Amino acid sequence: MKLGVCYYPEHWPREWWADDAARMADMGLSHVRIGEFAWSRIEPDPGHFDWDWLDEAVETLGAAGLSIVMGTPTATPPKWLVDAHPDILAWDQQGRPRRFGSRRHYCFSSETYRAESARIVSAIATRYGRHPALGAWQIDNEFGCHDTTLSYSPNAARRFREWLAQRHQSVDALNRAWGLVFWSEEFRSFDEVDPPNLTVTEPNPSHRLDYARFASDEVASFSRLQADIIRRLSPGRPITHNFMGFHTSFDHWKLGRDLDFASWDSYPLGNLQEAWFRDDEKLRHLRQGHPDVQAFNHDLYRGVGRGRWWVMEQQPGPVNWARFNPAPVDGMVRAWTWEAFAHGAEAVTYFRWRQAPFAQEQMHAGLNRSDRVEDQGGREARQVAAELKEIGALDPCGRAPVALTMASEAEWHLAIQPQGQGFHWVPLAFEMYAALRRLGLDVDIVGPDGDLAGYRLVVCPSLPILREDTLARLDASGARVLFGPRTGSRTVDGRTPSDLPPGPLQARLPMKVTRAESLRPGGGPTVRIGAATFVSRLWRERIETELAPLATFEDGGPAWVQSGRWNYLAAWPERGLADAVVGRLVADAGLATVPLEEGVRLRTRGGLAFAVNYSDAPRRAPAPDGAHFVLGGPALEPGGVAAWRLG
Amino acid sequence: MKLGVCYYPEHWPREWWADDAARMADMGLSHVRIGEFAWSRIEPDPGHFDWDWLDEAVETLGAAGLSIVMGTPTATPPKWLVDAHPDILAWDQQGRPRRFGSRRHYCFSSETYRAESARIVSAIATRYGRHPALGAWQIDNEFGCHDTTLSYSPNAARRFREWLAQRHQSVDALNRAWGLVFWSEEFRSFDEVDPPNLTVTEPNPSHRLDYARFASDEVASFSRLQADIIRRLSPGRPITHNFMGFHTSFDHWKLGRDLDFASWDSYPLGNLQEAWFRDDEKLRHLRQGHPDVQAFNHDLYRGVGRGRWWVMEQQPGPVNWARFNPAPVDGMVRAWTWEAFAHGAEAVTYFRWRQAPFAQEQMHAGLNRSDRVEDQGGREARQVAAELKEIGALDPCGRAPVALTMASEAEWHLAIQPQGQGFHWVPLAFEMYAALRRLGLDVDIVGPDGDLAGYRLVVCPSLPILREDTLARLDASGARVLFGPRTGSRTVDGRTPSDLPPGPLQARLPMKVTRAESLRPGGGPTVRIGAATFVSRLWRERIETELAPLATFEDGGPAWVQSGRWNYLAAWPERGLADAVVGRLVADAGLATVPLEEGVRLRTRGGLAFAVNYSDAPRRAPAPDGAHFVLGGPALEPGGVAAWRLG
Amino acid sequence: MKLGVCYYPEHWPREWWADDAARMADMGLSHVRIGEFAWSRIEPDPGHFDWDWLDEAVETLGAAGLSIVMGTPTATPPKWLVDAHPDILAWDQQGRPRRFGSRRHYCFSSETYRAESARIVSAIATRYGRHPALGAWQIDNEFGCHDTTLSYSPNAARRFREWLAQRHQSVDALNRAWGLVFWSEEFRSFDEVDPPNLTVTEPNPSHRLDYARFASDEVASFSRLQADIIRRLSPGRPITHNFMGFHTSFDHWKLGRDLDFASWDSYPLGNLQEAWFRDDEKLRHLRQGHPDVQAFNHDLYRGVGRGRWWVMEQQPGPVNWARFNPAPVDGMVRAWTWEAFAHGAEAVTYFRWRQAPFAQEQMHAGLNRSDRVEDQGGREARQVAAELKEIGALDPCGRAPVALTMASEAEWHLAIQPQGQGFHWVPLAFEMYAALRRLGLDVDIVGPDGDLAGYRLVVCPSLPILREDTLARLDASGARVLFGPRTGSRTVDGRTPSDLPPGPLQARLPMKVTRAESLRPGGGPTVRIGAATFVSRLWRERIETELAPLATFEDGGPAWVQSGRWNYLAAWPERGLADAVVGRLVADAGLATVPLEEGVRLRTRGGLAFAVNYSDAPRRAPAPDGAHFVLGGPALEPGGVAAWRLG
Repeated sequence: MKLGVCYYPEHWPREWWADDAARMADMGLSHVRIGEFAWSRIEPDPGHFDWDWLDEAVETLGAAGLSIVMGTPTATPPKWLVDAHPDILAWDQQGRPRRFGSRRHYCFSSETYRAESARIVSAIATRYGRHPALGAWQIDNEFGCHDTTLSYSPNAARRFREWLAQRHQSVDALNRAWGLVFWSEEFRSFDEVDPPNLTVTEPNPSHRLDYARFASDEVASFSRLQADIIRRLSPGRPITHNFMGFHTSFDHWKLGRDLDFASWDSYPLGNLQEAWFRDDEKLRHLRQGHPDVQAFNHDLYRGVGRGRWWVMEQQPGPVNWARFNPAPVDGMVRAWTWEAFAHGAEAVTYFRWRQAPFAQEQMHAGLNRSDRVEDQGGREARQVAAELKEIGALDPCGRAPVALTMASEAEWHLAIQPQGQGFHWVPLAFEMYAALRRLGLDVDIVGPDGDLAGYRLVVCPSLPILREDTLARLDASGARVLFGPRTGSRTVDGRTPSDLPPGPLQARLPMKVTRAESLRPGGGPTVRIGAATFVSRLWRERIETELAPLATFEDGGPAWVQSGRWNYLAAWPERGLADAVVGRLVADAGLATVPLEEGVRLRTRGGLAFAVNYSDAPRRAPAPDGAHFVLGGPALEPGGVAAWRLG
Repeated sequence: MKLGVCYYPEHWPREWWADDAARMADMGLSHVRIGEFAWSRIEPDPGHFDWDWLDEAVETLGAAGLSIVMGTPTATPPKWLVDAHPDILAWDQQGRPRRFGSRRHYCFSSETYRAESARIVSAIATRYGRHPALGAWQIDNEFGCHDTTLSYSPNAARRFREWLAQRHQSVDALNRAWGLVFWSEEFRSFDEVDPPNLTVTEPNPSHRLDYARFASDEVASFSRLQADIIRRLSPGRPITHNFMGFHTSFDHWKLGRDLDFASWDSYPLGNLQEAWFRDDEKLRHLRQGHPDVQAFNHDLYRGVGRGRWWVMEQQPGPVNWARFNPAPVDGMVRAWTWEAFAHGAEAVTYFRWRQAPFAQEQMHAGLNRSDRVEDQGGREARQVAAELKEIGALDPCGRAPVALTMASEAEWHLAIQPQGQGFHWVPLAFEMYAALRRLGLDVDIVGPDGDLAGYRLVVCPSLPILREDTLARLDASGARVLFGPRTGSRTVDGRTPSDLPPGPLQARLPMKVTRAESLRPGGGPTVRIGAATFVSRLWRERIETELAPLATFEDGGPAWVQSGRWNYLAAWPERGLADAVVGRLVADAGLATVPLEEGVRLRTRGGLAFAVNYSDAPRRAPAPDGAHFVLGGPALEPGGVAAWRLG
Repeated sequence: MKLGVCYYPEHWPREWWADDAARMADMGLSHVRIGEFAWSRIEPDPGHFDWDWLDEAVETLGAAGLSIVMGTPTATPPKWLVDAHPDILAWDQQGRPRRFGSRRHYCFSSETYRAESARIVSAIATRYGRHPALGAWQIDNEFGCHDTTLSYSPNAARRFREWLAQRHQSVDALNRAWGLVFWSEEFRSFDEVDPPNLTVTEPNPSHRLDYARFASDEVASFSRLQADIIRRLSPGRPITHNFMGFHTSFDHWKLGRDLDFASWDSYPLGNLQEAWFRDDEKLRHLRQGHPDVQAFNHDLYRGVGRGRWWVMEQQPGPVNWARFNPAPVDGMVRAWTWEAFAHGAEAVTYFRWRQAPFAQEQMHAGLNRSDRVEDQGGREARQVAAELKEIGALDPCGRAPVALTMASEAEWHLAIQPQGQGFHWVPLAFEMYAALRRLGLDVDIVGPDGDLAGYRLVVCPSLPILREDTLARLDASGARVLFGPRTGSRTVDGRTPSDLPPGPLQARLPMKVTRAESLRPGGGPTVRIGAATFVSRLWRERIETELAPLATFEDGGPAWVQSGRWNYLAAWPERGLADAVVGRLVADAGLATVPLEEGVRLRTRGGLAFAVNYSDAPRRAPAPDGAHFVLGGPALEPGGVAAWRLG
């Protein structure tokens, strides 16, 4: 458990570097990320490398005892490179080449750019790969940011056709798989297939689904290209990529397989303001962040990293990029850091060392102000460093009692065919996740091929494409399973199963979804469990089954059916219904829950329980009487953290 | 009065066809629409036709006693055709060629596409035109859908110039007609004229009006091209096109002249969600549909078809294309079907036989589920078929006592120069139409050259371009006439009449509109009739007249003036005002009205009165005591229908 | 003080001209603007001039005693010119050439268009420059209207590079100034720089700031090109341009330097509906206009014109271009006219003489209806003309006691980096301006190099780029100064000052802004002054200072600090807080205020006080007992005006 910081030596006078390094060490930081975005300084002219400054930076930081995370600079190809090879540019959905002038302007499908990326990464890895201060590598930066996973360039079109030929083998198979007989869209050869943009009305959904898969594979192979080079030239140094919160445009699990550990960039206040939450929720958590947003992503990336993960960028104060950019309440940066460690983070890296006095992010806080004075974030990092020393190392997180499954193609399919405005996987899954967390439970988020053994409850918020091997793993796990609406409603090719949804699930849970409807806000449906009635929203399925329902819609139709350990919920649960359904299954599974005051959350790691108060009022830590506190105590101020030994 | 269904044999295994046909017949269906969208199967490669499958489909369906409606497949030119002739593609308003991958991607102004359409239609009509099972033809599918009437392609520019030369004869005449001296927009030759898109600020409104007329004429001539071929090759088979609800981008009346009957695609729940209604209205009618929306379009297309019309696609369950897609309440599919017959439909055709398990519309219900089990819509169609047999044939609708006039150019002009946000013809007309229908009156919707003889009341919701021949027909009819705001405010060229609005109407109704203003929501105006005050909205005209007003604005200015049988309303009436004004004129005309409970509507045909309950509570049918019911009875459940013999 | 009108003789039959001219004179108008937009009539074919009609118009109007303001027609290059030279067209931000068909379709950076503009202006100035009836010139029309200041054409790119080379001298200096090391955006030569559009995410803010400056300079040099020609060919005739209200896309002050007087186009009702005000504010002032909007722009353009200014277009009735277009209450056109004179206008020119019966603006009222009958606006102009005669000439406005500073680059910077949604300079400045005006104070708006001597209070609503010479002028003035939030937060290059904001102000006011946050609606902050609490919004800064604050945020942090005569406000003040802060400083400055009833405003000129009632209820003029009224009296009807001699 260690702290670090993102640093851009090229932004500051060389004279400051040694002092910066000394102050990092003094603050208790042990690693520093550099290099990302620095291509124009490393190779200022085509083929002419300027290693001088980077050598000095590496030496200076290493000399201060800091371990270096080197970022590859491929997110920002310089102007001379783009001018020489315009085919590097991605094309947007409107059919225009995207232009130089910010970042991420490259197309994953540009062979030129793949070659150029290999060239620059090789050069950097050759020079620093075996340097003693070199601790780890970060590939590129935030793949998919600014809507850059999908490109509609001629390069993308060409490689998409190759990808399709590989996947479908024959164009007849493609025509059948996508159902292209519909609207006379059949192709005579793969060469006739285009990217699915600028069509008159919606393109074929299987076309879009395969395009999403293709684009995701392009990201993964681009990343792998770099990882392979680095592994060869920098043996023993682990490789990561910094993912983003709630970002679903490419398959994190697939990309994660080529990484040694996962990391993500956690901006609690910015993420909240830009996400789907209602205005009143955004207001309530304005300066603390949502109590479950960070946790959800921590659990996700712990899964992606197969247990090993970092926060690579941690918000240290106000950011610059959200619609509104409030400042965290004092203490909150520390609280977020501890929440990450409680979820098993190996490291938390603050972004950035010092607020920049120029360019796009000059309103983004750092640990230090741009006038070189330590800022609030720096003071809180210093405090965490001291506390870490006190507490000592903790074991990684153990297996949680509950798993929540996540597959990128679920999100892609639902985004392509929402059927009702606002039907997306993440908010639906989050509703169930938050219900678990409000019960004080630890949760693992598990990918499409993740191991499900040992869980007592597995929640599949919605799994439209329900693959046989997923079912086999669920069979094997013995866990209680809750499936959300639309599970099993599509084949791998994006078609409706011939025996209707939930397709292969019917062998375990005898039921059919014969109809689905989406409802506008205020239009229900309501769901009844015993005497209790819950207002639900957006979605209602008609279920044909002989099972006695555990919950019903207003007309008596089944809303929740159960057969043995298999459960299916035919509605989009809002808080009350989510609490009721999840609560009942948790109880059935014999899991112990912890009563939590509003805004307080709990997480365990390495024999400790951690509690954070996300509310704006004092709360009590949910610790037993006489608990042995290693951090804080029973009284939790707003933004307060406590940790105690588990009995 | 017969029922039918839309069927796509190419979507299903051949082995199913005979069974499908038998089940159609068993359900009581007598016709089946096929062929539309099937180009890629009919001509899989350039010039190579595969008739085999279609021959078999036609034989199989015909053998089951079904009459075939053959759709021409021109809404979906296949990929090979588009690739060979990119000039087929329409260009969108942003100046980009629209791309293959959905439907309706062709430009009406492409000579290539006109030739290719003639070729495919000739081939199909040659093969099936005289087949005994061939009952009727549908040209293309839903002209104008997905905003496809207006194209901004080089082809469209070229043909627009020719159209202008034809219409205006000399460029000087054009310059004068459009008032192009304004902003130095004068042209020196027709070759200098472009389509009115991508201008810096709004283009000349007469330019836009003529472009709308041109585009509408292109649709009509494209349709005529097919009709002419079919008439030659398939004698005696009537030709139709399936129009859409509330769609105004081309002149239905003009296109209708080349058809033998009109038809439209009725999706009560989808149409409601996508139309202009307020959210609370969309919620109130969520699962029943609006009680007047279908009726309005039935009355419209009865007019367009000169008395002969079908519903060509009838919603059978939830659809897939609206923002929200609820399921109809049970019984509603039957009720919608009866509402259509009550308005004079010759046939109602459900869309579609079986829900597709692939492609864009797989969430769109059919009469059967995709697993081949009869669905709710199928059960209701079966019920209607039985009821139809019971009731027997009914005469077509007689002339209604009230006419409402509709001219496409009114909608075009108001959309081009709304002057106040939200001023469109359809919602304004609908307000007046619904007031008539709430009085239990039958209404005819009459086109720009329709016969007005015999009506007791003619409502012209807004007729900015008031042509002399319209006035002549109104003169001749002897009916009371109500003109809505902005009537007579433009010449045929889109200019203000030199004697101010209402232009030529002044000879009948001595008044001038000296000023018009638009008002933001909450800004009134209020209208007073006697002691009653009505809140109106959006629009207020100042009228100079010596007539004593029947209604006044808050400052005493005339809001409603009358001279003999001529009436002019200077405001946009909301429900209360519409009821008051229309109610008074109906009473003056001596028309009998029927008190209706909320949500109940009435329509008469062939000596029967039909009532439908659109509310979500039980209601009473507005039948006299002792009425002879041929369908249902006095008690109307939600979605209930009743019919009784008129005294 | 004189009245005039905009007239387009080319729109009307020659037979009407003499009568029009006679009626103008009879109405009391003394000048008439013609010529703008008439290029296609002046030069109907390339190189062939038709002077005949314009000669006659000039003679006819001159013969009636009217002084002519000749508009150059460069806002509307004709079609033949654009077709011959497509490089004339501007390119929009989406990278597309804008198209002919409305107006302002030219690019300021087109050398071709500069040459063509010089040619047409020379021709017109040669012909009429010394004509006795020629009183003044207007260059082009409404620079920047319809978002036309910024063009992204190849021409603009080329001239931008030249401009950059001039400004930054070396590309290394440019790289440093903009901080292009960030995200590897460094350039190797000026040729590599592009306009800042179509980037993947936000481009460098200094890049955008310089592009805004460049585009503004292009407007100024384009205007100067015409001014130089006119000065040479039309000696003694003053030159103006007609600016717009609340328009900030180019630097009015810079352009104003080349003009002899400023003028602006005042559309109180249209401007209100299109501006940032809340819906309830737009409703409250629906037919009167906002009481401070016209005044703000009057004060601004009096500054831009160095004391000399006109209203060049005055709304005479409903307009056609806002979302909603209400009619002014009767009397309001007169009231607006007097408000302009009270603020020092030399002339008020109504737009337009007669409502056009064709083209884009046919719903825009004139002084006369399109049927040649005098309209309400004409009657009110006639009344003002009579009243002007009565009152006689007034001296120009004297220096006001209070100045408000305005710099275009402040608005540009804040629009580029708002940091919180809705942070713009104009609404912030307007809040402070309105507070001053509610106290009955006269205000001067002063530009970046304006003289500040003699003011008792200077309000700088927000001055992010606080230049040394501004500080020097503030030092010299001795006035109390109020700076709003974000003052001094940027260097000239758009970077954060190395000693943090407010940069150079710290030498006068010892404080640092260490952090800024933006808050969503409902999120505060609240500000406390003594016992009073004010709800503020959107913005909050953390201030490090040893000064005792005059106002504090809820956590005790300083919200308003003062050192001697220097004041800094760290929040965005809404009405209550603005009144409190401004009221206190006004009192401290010893300025006399006048209690005004709601909706009444006061302005003094030439020894007279003018009051206008903008409310919809009768009010009292804030005149002392026994005041000598020269216009109206103590009772002010809605839209009423009164003027009395100052004691």
